[in-house]
Amino acid sequence: MNLSLTELRAAYTAGTVTPRDVMAMIGERCEQYRDHNIWIHQLTATELEPYLKRLEASSPSALPLYGIPFAIKDNIDLAGVPTTAACEEFTYTPERSAFVVKHLIEAGAIPVGKTNLDQFATGLVGTRSPWGACKNSYDPSMISGGSSAGSAVSVALGMATFSLGTDTAGSGRVPACFNNLVGVKPSIGLLSASGMLPACRSLDCITIFALQCDDANAILAIAEGEDATDAYSRNNPFANHARHYGLWQGSVRMGVLPAEQLAFFGHEEYAQSYQASLAAIAASGVELVEVDFSPFIEAARLLYEGPWVAERYIATSPLIQKRPEALLDVTRTIISAGDKGSAVDAFRAQYRLKTLRKAATAVLESVDCLLTPTAGRPYRIDEVNADPITLNSNLGYYTNYMNLFDLAGVAVPTGFTASGFPFGLTLVGEAFTDRRLLSVANRLQQLFQLPLGKGQGDYQPLASVPVKDQQTISVAVCG
Amino acid sequence: MNLSLTELRAAYTAGTVTPRDVMAMIGERCEQYRDHNIWIHQLTATELEPYLKRLEASSPSALPLYGIPFAIKDNIDLAGVPTTAACEEFTYTPERSAFVVKHLIEAGAIPVGKTNLDQFATGLVGTRSPWGACKNSYDPSMISGGSSAGSAVSVALGMATFSLGTDTAGSGRVPACFNNLVGVKPSIGLLSASGMLPACRSLDCITIFALQCDDANAILAIAEGEDATDAYSRNNPFANHARHYGLWQGSVRMGVLPAEQLAFFGHEEYAQSYQASLAAIAASGVELVEVDFSPFIEAARLLYEGPWVAERYIATSPLIQKRPEALLDVTRTIISAGDKGSAVDAFRAQYRLKTLRKAATAVLESVDCLLTPTAGRPYRIDEVNADPITLNSNLGYYTNYMNLFDLAGVAVPTGFTASGFPFGLTLVGEAFTDRRLLSVANRLQQLFQLPLGKGQGDYQPLASVPVKDQQTISVAVCG
Repeated sequence: MNLSLTELRAAYTAGTVTPRDVMAMIGERCEQYRDHNIWIHQLTATELEPYLKRLEASSPSALPLYGIPFAIKDNIDLAGVPTTAACEEFTYTPERSAFVVKHLIEAGAIPVGKTNLDQFATGLVGTRSPWGACKNSYDPSMISGGSSAGSAVSVALGMATFSLGTDTAGSGRVPACFNNLVGVKPSIGLLSASGMLPACRSLDCITIFALQCDDANAILAIAEGEDATDAYSRNNPFANHARHYGLWQGSVRMGVLPAEQLAFFGHEEYAQSYQASLAAIAASGVELVEVDFSPFIEAARLLYEGPWVAERYIATSPLIQKRPEALLDVTRTIISAGDKGSAVDAFRAQYRLKTLRKAATAVLESVDCLLTPTAGRPYRIDEVNADPITLNSNLGYYTNYMNLFDLAGVAVPTGFTASGFPFGLTLVGEAFTDRRLLSVANRLQQLFQLPLGKGQGDYQPLASVPVKDQQTISVAVCG
Repeated sequence: MNLSLTELRAAYTAGTVTPRDVMAMIGERCEQYRDHNIWIHQLTATELEPYLKRLEASSPSALPLYGIPFAIKDNIDLAGVPTTAACEEFTYTPERSAFVVKHLIEAGAIPVGKTNLDQFATGLVGTRSPWGACKNSYDPSMISGGSSAGSAVSVALGMATFSLGTDTAGSGRVPACFNNLVGVKPSIGLLSASGMLPACRSLDCITIFALQCDDANAILAIAEGEDATDAYSRNNPFANHARHYGLWQGSVRMGVLPAEQLAFFGHEEYAQSYQASLAAIAASGVELVEVDFSPFIEAARLLYEGPWVAERYIATSPLIQKRPEALLDVTRTIISAGDKGSAVDAFRAQYRLKTLRKAATAVLESVDCLLTPTAGRPYRIDEVNADPITLNSNLGYYTNYMNLFDLAGVAVPTGFTASGFPFGLTLVGEAFTDRRLLSVANRLQQLFQLPLGKGQGDYQPLASVPVKDQQTISVAVCG
């Protein structure tokens, strides 16, 4: 049995397993993979007991996420458990769970623990943590990707059905790619950020890692919802409700990058996996058209070279002002630059971004979605330790623009390299096309039929409702 | 004959008058009101001749704005004529007209000239200009309001059918109020800002002054349209097209301010005019409900106390860096503060704004539109000269928040004070409710039946198409 939502719910309903059994099995797996540095805090038996007791007084039919284990990135609050953001001196213990966590728990989900991350969610590598570099689920010498490192690896290795990450630069997508997972980077504001420690508050999203798209859609449906206390929370339009998720059938046109805008940073295997994935997608009847990715590339650079680093500075002050040595060297180096810029710089960069966005809009209007590699290449942990900033930047080449442009994205596995390392693509659309993207991603999962996570069983086609342009069918008539 | 669009078009069609006659009459009026300091550059006979020649080779039926005279605020480009922004050393002569100006001229409109303004569009008074304080059309000892001073007064005194202003803080609304005009502050991006000198580029709008709502709607229909070269330009949704303008009938609910949030700054007559206007509106069947204006008030203060002044600094550099003495003292004092703020300040203010916007959204969702005084009081020119910054701030109390919140507004005359000075209200709605607001403003114009501008004849009901929630009737069906 894997921990996919469907299988686990079926087992609970059949009575072949109980939440207590599942949590015991997860405890063993956590022990088995201890040196992967996945967890900052794993819930103790005492901490788990109230969740299990509550479920024992309920039933699978009463709660949509009855007994579903999930992992929480340690920059998102779980009531009564410390939030560290991978910085010991920053640690606080919240009284309340984050809005999203609260809704998931109310629906019956069980928190397994708080996961390791790049300190203050600044990084795409998963190595920038005093709790140790989080190791890749396929190859422990390789990075997990970050910053939502432990959240991704915990799902890939069967310690959770799904997990919560966060994504400012690509932290909800890069680790999905390197660990053979679906990574949903929702539209900004679809999931409330209340109870999440900001990285760049105007750009942050809570994200979902899952084995397959059906799970991600179901989890999203529970987690989403407008939150009056989060100024960045937004109302989800009807066309993006969970009911519009399914299997995208018929014609679809995707924008792909011209050869000269692709970058694999010397990694031949990823270049080959990309070409193989595209060939299979084209052969399946998807129309691929080349689009100009240059505005996306320029916007991506703005995230760390522009004024948005000031937001990271705000998020970590006053600690970074009073005790800068409390931060890792690399994290302090990056974030402390955020104190330098002027308001004039900030507005000039926002003007430039607006111009780039206009060009990006024209690109997105010409296709059903954009399709890019999720990451240009993976790195070994020792490579990243030797050159922590440049290699991290390379990982953001295909991701850093997304929240600056207020877009939605779904990372989906599409193959393995010749050496057996996971490779994946990201589907990109305008804000509030989350369900459309998930439906297309579902089609890609059905096309590739890859095994799930790392050793979590075979893919099985699930969603059977054909979805095609459903959002233009629902019509409200007033008269 | 007044210069309203309907009357002038009727006269052209009947052949009782030619564009050449109209421009000659306007020339005389400009001479008559020379000491009002309305114009920075009035087109010479030589400059006008190509426009007149072109019209003589065409006909009223061929051009929707055939022979319609209009004034252009002198921070908007007219090809071949200097743009000064009321700062001589800043002056340049553009080769091309602004996007909006170009479309109006193509439709047959004739530019009368470039109008006086508060230097660099920084001010709501109309006195901050080396070309002299622009005098009010009703009382030359009073301010015209600004910054679109000359544009408003030129229409009020019958030198143009309509005029273009700009609005960042309230410059398209305050002068409408003080000169008995309709002032349309469109949604940001509905009118392209290409060829407009920025004040705060992320907030600026080109605006329209007209004698009545019908004219404003017709002009808007010609001037609007997405512009690929303006990054802030936006597509106009179908529900906001010109066809949705008309006369709003049936029930309407407006949000009004509780007494303690009203401010008339000691001006009893404006306070009385406000109460009289509200009483008449309520008596006509409009439902008035009190709403909390406090988030709007706090946002208004952010415009000059927050980082957005950095945008004004960007717009005037490098002149303000190299030759600060080229600016008026008051303008330099305000704008040079824009160099001080940090990117950290800028993002902190944007966070605060986002929180206030959330509260404002809740208010706007509870009513058809918001209804406020357009300005709390008028001032004499000598009063403003004696205290140029504080009194200017007072004028922004009801206006400064609007573009920070990305809202649309229509200022409409609703009465005269006991001393005979114009008073008006502003209708406020979400972005792209421009036509809805204009339709409600039209209803108020029909209710109050005030004379037009200053001495421009009586109001005559025009739009006869009842509009009520038309935007929910058009249904696209795909199948």
